[in-house]
Amino acid sequence: MLAFKQQHFLLLSLLFGCIGLSSQAQTISAKQKATQGDRPNIVVFFVDDLGWQDMSEPFYKIKTAINEKFHTPHLETLAKDAVKFTNAYATPVCTPSRVSFLTGLNAAHHRVTNWTHPKANTTTDSKDELLNPPDWNINGLSPVPNIPHTIYATPFPSILKANGYYTIHIGKAHWGSAGTPGASPLNLGFMINIAGHSAGHPQNYYGEQNYGNLPGKTSYQAVPDLMEYHGTSTFLTEALTEEALKALEEPIRRKEPFFLHFSNYAVHVPIQPAPRFVQKYLDRGVDSTEAAYASLVEGYDKSIGDIVQFLKNKGIYDNTVIIFLSDNGGLSLSPPRSGKPHTQNLPLKAGKGSLYEGGIRIPLLIKPTKGHLASSNSSPVMVEDLFPTILQMAKIKDYQLVQQEPDGKDLTALMNGKSDNNWNSRPLVWHNPNKWTTPDGPGINFFSAIRQGDYKLLYNMKQEKLELYNLQDDIGEQHNLAPTMKGKTKALSKLLSDQLRLWKAQLPTYKSTGQQIRYPDQINSFD
Amino acid sequence: MLAFKQQHFLLLSLLFGCIGLSSQAQTISAKQKATQGDRPNIVVFFVDDLGWQDMSEPFYKIKTAINEKFHTPHLETLAKDAVKFTNAYATPVCTPSRVSFLTGLNAAHHRVTNWTHPKANTTTDSKDELLNPPDWNINGLSPVPNIPHTIYATPFPSILKANGYYTIHIGKAHWGSAGTPGASPLNLGFMINIAGHSAGHPQNYYGEQNYGNLPGKTSYQAVPDLMEYHGTSTFLTEALTEEALKALEEPIRRKEPFFLHFSNYAVHVPIQPAPRFVQKYLDRGVDSTEAAYASLVEGYDKSIGDIVQFLKNKGIYDNTVIIFLSDNGGLSLSPPRSGKPHTQNLPLKAGKGSLYEGGIRIPLLIKPTKGHLASSNSSPVMVEDLFPTILQMAKIKDYQLVQQEPDGKDLTALMNGKSDNNWNSRPLVWHNPNKWTTPDGPGINFFSAIRQGDYKLLYNMKQEKLELYNLQDDIGEQHNLAPTMKGKTKALSKLLSDQLRLWKAQLPTYKSTGQQIRYPDQINSFD
Repeated sequence: MLAFKQQHFLLLSLLFGCIGLSSQAQTISAKQKATQGDRPNIVVFFVDDLGWQDMSEPFYKIKTAINEKFHTPHLETLAKDAVKFTNAYATPVCTPSRVSFLTGLNAAHHRVTNWTHPKANTTTDSKDELLNPPDWNINGLSPVPNIPHTIYATPFPSILKANGYYTIHIGKAHWGSAGTPGASPLNLGFMINIAGHSAGHPQNYYGEQNYGNLPGKTSYQAVPDLMEYHGTSTFLTEALTEEALKALEEPIRRKEPFFLHFSNYAVHVPIQPAPRFVQKYLDRGVDSTEAAYASLVEGYDKSIGDIVQFLKNKGIYDNTVIIFLSDNGGLSLSPPRSGKPHTQNLPLKAGKGSLYEGGIRIPLLIKPTKGHLASSNSSPVMVEDLFPTILQMAKIKDYQLVQQEPDGKDLTALMNGKSDNNWNSRPLVWHNPNKWTTPDGPGINFFSAIRQGDYKLLYNMKQEKLELYNLQDDIGEQHNLAPTMKGKTKALSKLLSDQLRLWKAQLPTYKSTGQQIRYPDQINSFD
Repeated sequence: MLAFKQQHFLLLSLLFGCIGLSSQAQTISAKQKATQGDRPNIVVFFVDDLGWQDMSEPFYKIKTAINEKFHTPHLETLAKDAVKFTNAYATPVCTPSRVSFLTGLNAAHHRVTNWTHPKANTTTDSKDELLNPPDWNINGLSPVPNIPHTIYATPFPSILKANGYYTIHIGKAHWGSAGTPGASPLNLGFMINIAGHSAGHPQNYYGEQNYGNLPGKTSYQAVPDLMEYHGTSTFLTEALTEEALKALEEPIRRKEPFFLHFSNYAVHVPIQPAPRFVQKYLDRGVDSTEAAYASLVEGYDKSIGDIVQFLKNKGIYDNTVIIFLSDNGGLSLSPPRSGKPHTQNLPLKAGKGSLYEGGIRIPLLIKPTKGHLASSNSSPVMVEDLFPTILQMAKIKDYQLVQQEPDGKDLTALMNGKSDNNWNSRPLVWHNPNKWTTPDGPGINFFSAIRQGDYKLLYNMKQEKLELYNLQDDIGEQHNLAPTMKGKTKALSKLLSDQLRLWKAQLPTYKSTGQQIRYPDQINSFD
């Protein structure tokens, strides 16, 4: 049965992927050097902690109450030119998603299953009474071999760079811990790094507070670079946008294709009001916390608007691929959010950290270059799919990877209107053998999950229980079908388990015995 | 008389300079884009606070006791391929020299006459009982107009960049205060900035201490970037060197000429021992402070060796111009140095901060591309001369400056063996209407000076006194000739005063009256 599953996944790899593997280093010949004429520019807006509905543009079949709370006009405009993926996913927390993005690997496969600490060799797992997390890759991604507790892999920006792209990272990085090479975006294929380091959120959004760089008060989260804005009224989002616009001048002047990874620190905590936008939400009667959150949201939207306008002014918008996504679901802990905990993403259940839809469902837009346009696609897709998708859109077919075998699939077929059963039946897997926060919440801490078609199975490791939902009928995951649909439950638990075995995914152990917990197909709740 | 002096300096400008002035922005046409084949690479090793003799390679006519203290074998090797300037100068402190380097302007002219504070709008002058410093450009250099308290000028790296150079800054920047554009090397023509910001020295040289980035203990001087080395045993000098070697890979791969500004934080305070080198000095019986200092010195030498070896390995050493210099004289305050204060640069008088030779005389080597070699030159030259020299060596003749009229002169004629009377009689001017430190020391605080030929005149503003020395006979400035050579003293005071008037150089004012002090030619000590 293992062999069958392995074959199944390998077949999917052959169907969807076109990946050359080799342990040799990247090289480039003069003829490979690209110019703006023959390769598209690529801009990725990677927003932090943004919920699936945290924008006025809906990704659900209807505009929800949450959509109505926000004002993101530039995203609405961008969506008109883009393919909207209405069933797109990431992992439940940031670093795993960001490593999947850069490597094409599923988090169960790369083993960076929780967020990485700013400092090397420091776990971020909370203490749990029942389980110990496995020995996961707490130091994140490494482009250099033999760095303890890292996944050694080739990040796609290094492939873009080797193929003539001018590669720029702006904003949050958070791919590796300080003390390891992955802490610096410059080691991950980026020529330019502004404000990215090993921390996952800003200490402070305010220029007046030097983004946290206050002598004697600085934490690991003080935002690096940006010193020219210290002591000014420039909000962090605005400073990053200005830096992006300046950085883009050089590849444009050089007539080189560019990759801009614009990774906003917004809308991660601390939820601080952006003075340019907050008043209108306060005037509407929104409470101060949610008004601040909405102002962070409108700030990222303004970034998008400013950068898109710049591309249009330069006459290169049409030849620029623009991708917009979040790295996990919206935060539903309260505080720091307002309201009842785990209601901030309704109708989705729970939020960041959870394997329920509220924690993993993300907005995803891909604006292709002119003339390759489908308006939307409902196939389930995952953050690691962007690895082969971006390389395909960059027209790079011949590349070498130090050792990884990407799990992500090239989405360009979907963008051209294809959406057959192979795509719809492709299983997606989430694996979180970690304790993200205390106390446990719905779907939060020690969960695995698989989605195939409309069905989604969750494995609650602590309780050794399985839940099954039909997302088509029940996007809120309110009606557990496991007790009634035992065959489907069993089949999905098998599919999930075999995939975890294939990847050698790590499982937690019992504190009391040191024994590993069972795979989902080893528990008998469906017998 | 003013008209004559203006003419005199304009004549020198015409003789030595070839500068196009315009307020228009830099532009580049495709044909201007340079490749490694036709333009040399340029590497500048700008060492901080390094005394004229703080190396085993002598710049004086003999190897001195101080030279004997140090071990810099890589510099000795480099010197064999370079032109050695034995009468080279900078300003007495760092920011003025660094701004002169980037702009070609004398410090009296650009008005950044003291070091700039890490934070905008903050003077660094100490309090003085008699004088108030003038309203100098306390925020440093700005590439953007209308920034208060800055000199608005075109930095030469932006000209190199516009002409196809791949421009890299590594290490100490210190060109402008945080909160102004000059705080970021990316605004000064550098495409890449690693570890440069608005502070003038490192908080800490140790990777184990995160170069100062310790939560709750961070000062303005915590070194930015370099997070991958945090918590490791990588000494700051070594981390910067590794970053330089990595950064150089990209222009080499692209076959583009590069400009590397390698600006070591060493050997500025804090004087912390470099573990790789300190033991040999301790074994020789050197005290722990001076052994630490010598280890910082040997560290910068190792940087030079590593980078030169890299260039040789890549086969591009011959086509690379290498410039080595310091930004002021060696520190002679004690503590933090050992020994009797102001003896650390003997036979030179005083040290950093002073207008005596110990504070302003620097080592300068220029290794040209193969085939343009003189072994040494004794004409008096100044840090601002590197502006036109570098542009000349980069073969860039047609460039535009936003508004400055550089004072520096192209040194390539000297490198080709020329050394006529025009060069030897060119007056060099220093102007320090500031209070660098308390208490006053020899030549430190409120001094101006001029050198022409062998004669040097100093103007002590607080005492309104003039001193005259013949440097050929008396490099230690022990025998004041002003009382006996009144004609020479008067002539040089006139030359100095007229130049200060021409530049509209700023003078301090008396605290008691608010009145500006007199020009040196207005006092009657030579009557």
